[in-house]
Amino acid sequence: MAQAEIGLIGLGVMGSNLALNIAEKGNKIAVFNRTVEATRKFYAEAGDLQGQIVPCETIEEFVAAIRPPRPIIIMIKAGDPVDQQMELLKPYLEKNDIMIDAGNANFRDTMRRFDNLKDSGLTFIGMGVSGGEEGARHGPSIMVGGTEDSWKRVEKVLTSIAAKYNDDPCVAWLGENGAGHFVKTIHNGIEYADMQMIAEIYGILRDGLKMSATEISEVFGTWNKGRLNSYLIEITEKVLKAADPITGGPIVDLILDKAGQKGTGKWSAIEAQNMGVPATGIEAAVAARSISSMKEEREAAEKVLGLPDGELKIADKAAFLKDLESALLASKIGAYAQGFAVMSAASKEFGWNLPMPTIARIWRAGCIIRSQFLDEITTAFTKDPDVANLIVTPAFATMVKETDGALRRVVSAAVLAGLPVPALASALGYFDSYRRGRGTANVIQAQRDFFGAHGFDRVDGKAAHHGPWGSGLNA
Amino acid sequence: MAQAEIGLIGLGVMGSNLALNIAEKGNKIAVFNRTVEATRKFYAEAGDLQGQIVPCETIEEFVAAIRPPRPIIIMIKAGDPVDQQMELLKPYLEKNDIMIDAGNANFRDTMRRFDNLKDSGLTFIGMGVSGGEEGARHGPSIMVGGTEDSWKRVEKVLTSIAAKYNDDPCVAWLGENGAGHFVKTIHNGIEYADMQMIAEIYGILRDGLKMSATEISEVFGTWNKGRLNSYLIEITEKVLKAADPITGGPIVDLILDKAGQKGTGKWSAIEAQNMGVPATGIEAAVAARSISSMKEEREAAEKVLGLPDGELKIADKAAFLKDLESALLASKIGAYAQGFAVMSAASKEFGWNLPMPTIARIWRAGCIIRSQFLDEITTAFTKDPDVANLIVTPAFATMVKETDGALRRVVSAAVLAGLPVPALASALGYFDSYRRGRGTANVIQAQRDFFGAHGFDRVDGKAAHHGPWGSGLNA
Repeated sequence: MAQAEIGLIGLGVMGSNLALNIAEKGNKIAVFNRTVEATRKFYAEAGDLQGQIVPCETIEEFVAAIRPPRPIIIMIKAGDPVDQQMELLKPYLEKNDIMIDAGNANFRDTMRRFDNLKDSGLTFIGMGVSGGEEGARHGPSIMVGGTEDSWKRVEKVLTSIAAKYNDDPCVAWLGENGAGHFVKTIHNGIEYADMQMIAEIYGILRDGLKMSATEISEVFGTWNKGRLNSYLIEITEKVLKAADPITGGPIVDLILDKAGQKGTGKWSAIEAQNMGVPATGIEAAVAARSISSMKEEREAAEKVLGLPDGELKIADKAAFLKDLESALLASKIGAYAQGFAVMSAASKEFGWNLPMPTIARIWRAGCIIRSQFLDEITTAFTKDPDVANLIVTPAFATMVKETDGALRRVVSAAVLAGLPVPALASALGYFDSYRRGRGTANVIQAQRDFFGAHGFDRVDGKAAHHGPWGSGLNA
Repeated sequence: MAQAEIGLIGLGVMGSNLALNIAEKGNKIAVFNRTVEATRKFYAEAGDLQGQIVPCETIEEFVAAIRPPRPIIIMIKAGDPVDQQMELLKPYLEKNDIMIDAGNANFRDTMRRFDNLKDSGLTFIGMGVSGGEEGARHGPSIMVGGTEDSWKRVEKVLTSIAAKYNDDPCVAWLGENGAGHFVKTIHNGIEYADMQMIAEIYGILRDGLKMSATEISEVFGTWNKGRLNSYLIEITEKVLKAADPITGGPIVDLILDKAGQKGTGKWSAIEAQNMGVPATGIEAAVAARSISSMKEEREAAEKVLGLPDGELKIADKAAFLKDLESALLASKIGAYAQGFAVMSAASKEFGWNLPMPTIARIWRAGCIIRSQFLDEITTAFTKDPDVANLIVTPAFATMVKETDGALRRVVSAAVLAGLPVPALASALGYFDSYRRGRGTANVIQAQRDFFGAHGFDRVDGKAAHHGPWGSGLNA
């Protein structure tokens, strides 16, 4: 019997779907699970794909079934379990075998695992997989970090299972060690921002324009045919339209407004802070989820403070809806520009040489933030891969200039009406700070020099200075 | 000769000033510096205070000069030098001697140092000192973390040198190990936000109302007599008024608009993220400093994007100036509420039992954010020390309701005019999210369930659910 091209450990929903995807694309795969029952059940239900699957009940059997050097995907709960699994596996492996963590790992753990294997002859790939269960089964976006040699060993299989955007597979080797998981983390941070901006627009429609879930669904449906065309807009239309089986009303009105989070948004924000790169859109989104989780505090605060008594003042509803569409596009540009800027800084910090056009390219399909928009980003970065910021590429500069007026009107109206728009406002703050050659930090430098003698530079290039505060320091 | 009450190592500007302050308040102090010349110079220039100072040229001499158990302040560059100094000092110390790090340490280093000394018989205090050079010399605000016993040994000296607010000394023991340095970090984070909000208001006056530095100085001067009365407003008036000795024009117009940062703002943001507590005001301020430092990128972006072409539309300038004053107060409330919420979470996380009224109390004088406002916070927390958030205390709820309308008008006008107000806007986003019992995270939960089967709770308490997305997952 021909050996399996690849192995996979962990037959949970994600692992099972990934294994079926691999088998379906004509790759022979060996699978193993800690509990034998899961392996048997998986195999029994694999139907036509059984011929491509080698179900294994022991690690020895599993390892023997894979063609060396063996790529072995580990798809289990992130954290300590991965380290434990790696330790269990190690004694059975041979030189150049590749352990692949396909979970949502913190890239710092990935770097550590990669380094720990350095002298063992084995190697490690940290692989970000986006697209949820559905993506795993039918075509995820795959972000690979590891040695180039290990990538070459898995390239064919991964290319066969990845999502396709106009026949272009959404998988790439992005760099050494933690590159793949870092890019996946920032993907998720951007996803947080994107979802929060949609939620803010939804809030304006619901609480400002008093529209029903069904009416709002139609708005998103229309937008999905335009420049906002994307998976997240598409599913927003769908979830707003869905009826509750119990009451028959829109299910979204019955869902508790407490959003969970699993860490990647927070990691994005922390790494951006570590590198000193503004990621205020991601920060606003993470903060919004945290505030959402304080449901009881919010209810108590509403009793004490009341809702703001402003009303949404709109002269022309149709024009305002157009503004909302443009505002969402503008704020997306801000969040994506920040995300790419964070990756650019990380690329230097960790020596990855991350390929920005490639990252945008493999996010065009398969992943949660997939969209038309990412094709435009791909084009912009392909033309100008070393540009300082997405928003100064010609295409996006034009887009910012076309849409930021609408974003201003929307933020202004929402702010006056007391409708929270922290993520939308963060994009405006970013644009308006970043495009202003002469900012206001001169007054901050003056203050810092006054109280802490930090010194400052002068615009006229004269020598670094302290201020003539005179009695200031002795006041 | 009577022994010194305390010792101090490190006669830089901060250390010298602190030592002179200690001596001046009638405490005998032994001093030591790595280079003997600095010690001699310091002593030679100490004038009348020489009688209170024991200049030491060797560590042996220095340690012998201090009354056991010996409190020894280390005031040197934060980071590795502190660890090195501690190692050098350790062999000379005896049971119960106390090494005190008075620099701007990361509280995680302080926790580590505290723990490392646990079995040595020695102990460690992490002491936040705010107020810059001037505060060190004439009365800083002092935040102490360590064992209660070690605090008792230094209480008298520290109380004598601390700033006084209506005779109330601005020093307190805040908890074990890293409590003092953590509170100092958040102090600095709040300081970042406070300074950024002032800079945004300055920007509106300068770029929106086209006022000169001198005119803006007068506005801040007026505000300093009202509810905004504070050190930062006072020095803003002063720095805006100061003339450049070379050109004779306002010096602030000649200062380069690139703000530096030393880490505490970033640490505040990271720790807030770690604990899941929104600190968007601090995040906006840190981001603004980062963007300010990208001067060349900003100049290039202005060429590509142009400045926004909106104008500040103001019907009544006097009324708008009043709005700006109230807006600054409102946004301060937001930033301080966030800062205190971060400390409250940290208190639980690290088991410190941080006393919120005491923290506000010792920030009323001596430190950079000292103000009338902090006296109001002290009163609010004294009445209700366990309140969930500053903004739901009766006094601050009233203040929010009195001022948030002005903040809305200011943010709205600035946003339409293209003047960056990220920190001001962050406060509004915070208020409007926090006071809304029914938020918009229901749509986020629906999306997450759609693509990731995360599940959600229902408002009607019916069992946790997945949505009826039907073909959704297979779309």
